[in-house]
Amino acid sequence: MLASTGGVVALAGLGGMNRATAAGAQATAAAPAAKPLPEYAKWKNADALIVHSANTIETKRGAFGSSVITPSEHLFVRNNIAPPSLDIVKDPDAWTLEVAGVARPRSFTVAELKTMGLAALPMVLQCSGNGRAWFPSKPSGTQWTVGAAGCVIFTGVPVKAVLEAVGGMSEGMVYMTSTGGEDMPAGLDPKDVMVERSVPVSALEDAILAWELNGQPLSLAHGGPLRIVVPGYTGVNSVKYIKRLAFTKEQSPAKIQQTGYRLAPVGAKGESTQASIWEMPPKSWINTPSDPAQPVKAGRVVISGVAMGGMTAAKTIEVSINGGKDWQPAQFVGPDLGRYAWREFALAVQLEPGTYQLASRSTNAAGESQPEERMENNRGYLNNSWRDHMVTIKVA
Amino acid sequence: MLASTGGVVALAGLGGMNRATAAGAQATAAAPAAKPLPEYAKWKNADALIVHSANTIETKRGAFGSSVITPSEHLFVRNNIAPPSLDIVKDPDAWTLEVAGVARPRSFTVAELKTMGLAALPMVLQCSGNGRAWFPSKPSGTQWTVGAAGCVIFTGVPVKAVLEAVGGMSEGMVYMTSTGGEDMPAGLDPKDVMVERSVPVSALEDAILAWELNGQPLSLAHGGPLRIVVPGYTGVNSVKYIKRLAFTKEQSPAKIQQTGYRLAPVGAKGESTQASIWEMPPKSWINTPSDPAQPVKAGRVVISGVAMGGMTAAKTIEVSINGGKDWQPAQFVGPDLGRYAWREFALAVQLEPGTYQLASRSTNAAGESQPEERMENNRGYLNNSWRDHMVTIKVA
Repeated sequence: MLASTGGVVALAGLGGMNRATAAGAQATAAAPAAKPLPEYAKWKNADALIVHSANTIETKRGAFGSSVITPSEHLFVRNNIAPPSLDIVKDPDAWTLEVAGVARPRSFTVAELKTMGLAALPMVLQCSGNGRAWFPSKPSGTQWTVGAAGCVIFTGVPVKAVLEAVGGMSEGMVYMTSTGGEDMPAGLDPKDVMVERSVPVSALEDAILAWELNGQPLSLAHGGPLRIVVPGYTGVNSVKYIKRLAFTKEQSPAKIQQTGYRLAPVGAKGESTQASIWEMPPKSWINTPSDPAQPVKAGRVVISGVAMGGMTAAKTIEVSINGGKDWQPAQFVGPDLGRYAWREFALAVQLEPGTYQLASRSTNAAGESQPEERMENNRGYLNNSWRDHMVTIKVA
Repeated sequence: MLASTGGVVALAGLGGMNRATAAGAQATAAAPAAKPLPEYAKWKNADALIVHSANTIETKRGAFGSSVITPSEHLFVRNNIAPPSLDIVKDPDAWTLEVAGVARPRSFTVAELKTMGLAALPMVLQCSGNGRAWFPSKPSGTQWTVGAAGCVIFTGVPVKAVLEAVGGMSEGMVYMTSTGGEDMPAGLDPKDVMVERSVPVSALEDAILAWELNGQPLSLAHGGPLRIVVPGYTGVNSVKYIKRLAFTKEQSPAKIQQTGYRLAPVGAKGESTQASIWEMPPKSWINTPSDPAQPVKAGRVVISGVAMGGMTAAKTIEVSINGGKDWQPAQFVGPDLGRYAWREFALAVQLEPGTYQLASRSTNAAGESQPEERMENNRGYLNNSWRDHMVTIKVA
């Protein structure tokens, strides 16, 4: 059942979970009947997700849970182009990875990679465009609010171990360039379509080649059978079904690198001279309570959410119940899974009946704080504005 | 397809996962066709599990994953008696918990408990009888090998917060006694059937009342809508669908407490004068490689598994490739989720073709080590023998 109240649409029928709404000032267009999960994602929990399209599936704000780790069946999906066939995950150990730009270039099977080391890496996976819905310039692209993000544990082999096995990178290499194994549509220039991303070689330090997610073999939905995972960087840089890992002098010539995922001024096209969307900034948001359509009982209320530091750990978290006028410190709850993971936070408050604007604001270990306002850019990337992420709740 | 080789039965048809076998000296009886998952557990991954019965479901040795946290769809189930109806998890917030033996006894709904605090607790959940299969005395009860265990994150309210809200425990109370909400069969003395367990009040320190598991609302399978979770203690003490939490002077009069779950000498019945099965000891085992029916490629091999400390953190882990004659230190891999969780460990070795007996041995932060031999007892509880947990592999 869909109810439209002054431009804010609430999705019903979710049992005990909070409804996802486009919180804050931005209203979403009235939504048609919910789209079904695509075949490769049918194993996911449809009640926890908003299917924007077959390749863009968002976690509902009430479906992150409070256990720090986002369950895989609730984890968002974003594919830049259609995934390869599900056949590629039938025999994951047989998948091959070519390694280039190194002293001894060669290919490895996943079976071979499994003999070269083991690392389990908790980290925030987040789409570059998470929070795009709040840009007043209405950038094209999926209108994610908070749900193109999750905190998960990837397991695989450290890139460093693979690099060591091939004698190190060749002289003069400054980028780590990863190529995805998608099928190229006929009749198009591959460079316009391929998912190939470059990151500075410094990013290899903590990067892994992952074959497992949250204890299960990595699904096609999340980039199986093998994905390079670059912690602290936005999701596009963690190339799915990676088939080639190269150390290079230049950034990839692919469109997705040259002009895609660039920080362009509003109204301007992406250019290779602009900053590439790489490192994530500090960010936080409140998950519970978060739905104005579900009144909260007056009295003691526990406000909870998640806080991330980006390239370094979240250090402090503050909460406001009056739209950012006054702030109080909140507490981290549960385990610290390291610098690249997020923390769960909570604050108990006493609320009388009324309407409240709840906000959260985090600072990381490098002293960087979430700003009040978003950094305007043409494609609506990297929104970590605390004001945009506010939620309005009714207490009765 | 089932193949029987000299008394060791390998279960086939699991795609890329290792087959579960009764590793070590003990052979299992030839198994009939795999039983289906019971209704309340149909959401689980049948390929990852061995269904011993509708109330005893074991994780296969190859299905723990290496990501530290055991995915819920692979997590074991053990119910002492049939679970209540699935109806009880339809409106989890409406479930009530009675609190007694305190200054101000009263009931709370789960909705009320959610306003009283938030804690996320990573911990090992393990059945008292995990490892029973290796007792030569052949104790009655499920012949678990390693798979009645997992490491998960429960989320809920600290028991301490609830205790504070009711004015503290009454004078002279020494146990925390929890009663499960199962239906009592007609015509039987409830004391003979009820699941009511007592633990020392010291255990309340880190205990929580949980409504969430691994980021999802707690399922009936794992004790939803509310379970008391006592970290460091065996699973029976974390009473499912808890309806009453009482602070008491005596241990519960229920049979499951008085004579059940007691450390009785072989051949003797359980008596209330014997130690109750409470705190878990240090323990570890190897998960990969672990199947003699799946030859391992000669050369470099990564041996991995899990290590837990019991009431305190796992501190060191050693691995032997020759049945315990020689030991070498292995490394912990991935996050440290605190004293009650387990650690993933790994060791890379070079193996020539042949047959090997792999063993692991852990020591906790209190200096307690896994013993070579099991502590004999009539019901096959608390097996942490490193020798029993050895695996035989073939390298070719």
